[in-house]
Amino acid sequence: MTGATPETSHPKIVALGGGHGLAASLAALRHLTRDLTGVVTVADNGGSSGRLREELGILPPGDLRMALAALCGDDDWGRTWAGVLQHRFTSEGPLKDHAVGNLLIAAIWDQLGDHVAGLDLVAELLGAQGRVLPMAAVPLDIEADVHLRSAPDRLTVVRGQSQVASVDGQVVSVRLDPLDPPACPEAVAAVKDADWITVGPGSWFTSVMPTLLVPELRDALVSSTAQRVLVLNLGEQAGETEGLTPVDHLEVLAAHAPELGLDLVIADTSLVDTRGNLEAMARSLGAKLVVAEVATSPGSDQHDPIRLAAAFSRAMKQA
Amino acid sequence: MTGATPETSHPKIVALGGGHGLAASLAALRHLTRDLTGVVTVADNGGSSGRLREELGILPPGDLRMALAALCGDDDWGRTWAGVLQHRFTSEGPLKDHAVGNLLIAAIWDQLGDHVAGLDLVAELLGAQGRVLPMAAVPLDIEADVHLRSAPDRLTVVRGQSQVASVDGQVVSVRLDPLDPPACPEAVAAVKDADWITVGPGSWFTSVMPTLLVPELRDALVSSTAQRVLVLNLGEQAGETEGLTPVDHLEVLAAHAPELGLDLVIADTSLVDTRGNLEAMARSLGAKLVVAEVATSPGSDQHDPIRLAAAFSRAMKQA
Repeated sequence: MTGATPETSHPKIVALGGGHGLAASLAALRHLTRDLTGVVTVADNGGSSGRLREELGILPPGDLRMALAALCGDDDWGRTWAGVLQHRFTSEGPLKDHAVGNLLIAAIWDQLGDHVAGLDLVAELLGAQGRVLPMAAVPLDIEADVHLRSAPDRLTVVRGQSQVASVDGQVVSVRLDPLDPPACPEAVAAVKDADWITVGPGSWFTSVMPTLLVPELRDALVSSTAQRVLVLNLGEQAGETEGLTPVDHLEVLAAHAPELGLDLVIADTSLVDTRGNLEAMARSLGAKLVVAEVATSPGSDQHDPIRLAAAFSRAMKQA
Repeated sequence: MTGATPETSHPKIVALGGGHGLAASLAALRHLTRDLTGVVTVADNGGSSGRLREELGILPPGDLRMALAALCGDDDWGRTWAGVLQHRFTSEGPLKDHAVGNLLIAAIWDQLGDHVAGLDLVAELLGAQGRVLPMAAVPLDIEADVHLRSAPDRLTVVRGQSQVASVDGQVVSVRLDPLDPPACPEAVAAVKDADWITVGPGSWFTSVMPTLLVPELRDALVSSTAQRVLVLNLGEQAGETEGLTPVDHLEVLAAHAPELGLDLVIADTSLVDTRGNLEAMARSLGAKLVVAEVATSPGSDQHDPIRLAAAFSRAMKQA
């Protein structure tokens, strides 16, 4: 790194999403800028986060922790602390499977009384190359309309992120509960101020769509002058998006945020079979399709951060 | 602080003990040197530490955490992280009363597989002005011979630090289980290399005496060329040392470590009533008595770090 790089070479990038997908996009984008903000879905109700949410009444910290770890400093200190924060207890007792970073974030929130200041403190601990913010200032729930396999002819309401993510049926749409949660003001400001905004990859209905459903944040997204880049998943996800093609994924997005235009859609080369349709569908959303090899290996469902960084970089130059 | 202070003005000081007493002596000694090591009793079986010990099979981390917090950097960063590590969860669930620093230390030990490296990492996080080590490399239990109030005529064996600390009766002596635990090698090395060693204040039978009972550590203490300073408690402690005079405290120490000579005994001015006897008793252990105002306020059972620092400083000049 050179200390004298001019400011203009560091675009302001905001990445929206949650879970492993957001961690992958942050791990890629950190190579392209020093001004990076992750905005995280806070609707998780399963695992360690779900238990903490229930016991302490807090925002689910798990996806925030994972995003912070993805931004950890590229040195022994940063990697060691990221490893510690990601560490899960193995026991047969009440700590089983809790990630210690979740407990630390919970304690810091209680101690400082401020979500954003607490996450900034953890970012500083990690030497994080960017900032991580919750999309909303209150814990949320997800409700989905689903054609259950056991009742395919009608829509059934399924509630809870972990329940929707593993539902045996076809998810049609999701909404938030509450419908109109207060956004995190710093997240709204970051979106308004961004040069680039990325959406996805990630669990389409339970991590990615929710970032488009917080009213204030959506308004900021829609009215932003930033270039908007959507990153498609590498395939369908058992339960949540079983049977959905890449074109279907874009249709789901258009249905959940009809007023949101896109500038670029990044798709892995493995989706090339459907490229003709995909290109047309992307165009109908105002976007250019960028096809690139972004999976860790052929057939993998994980994005490779370096390949994704290269694709982002190429896409940015095309925009 | 001046950067050019000659090495000789930083004596190597090792403080032995546990709990609030050790935290007080470390908070005092940090004013007198940059080469400070706390060596901590690891026999706690109550509260957050006891629960973690049972669930995870680890050294009880609580007194180590408290000692580290007492050494935290004297700036916003150090104080903030010390506050976070000392933070206890308030809930009605399984995290209730756990100190988050205990959970963090437990995770780091599991992650790094090394007690000392783990504590050094937490010290680095805190910008700690010194080092904290466990006295033994395995969790210990305390067994006490007690004249129970309900059976005053015979000795009853009471097991467990928290049980002994709150026993309804008169503790006569304590021993460790196992009797011959492996010492922490770095703690033994610190004692051997010390210019000054302090013992106490603290829970006499359950925090202070145990530091004299690990064979390798005791051998190092006895053969060390360091000046040995004992700090007496400000009074008796309900349960553990009820009815014991300051002279009795010294007799307890002599009975538990008969071969250990002392150079200085620091006693608060409030103990002046018994000064004649106390001076004679100290002399019988080879020590000079130093009387000073070291309580936070008259009648308090807490040592004031600054006053204790002044007393240490004066004592060191007298030695």
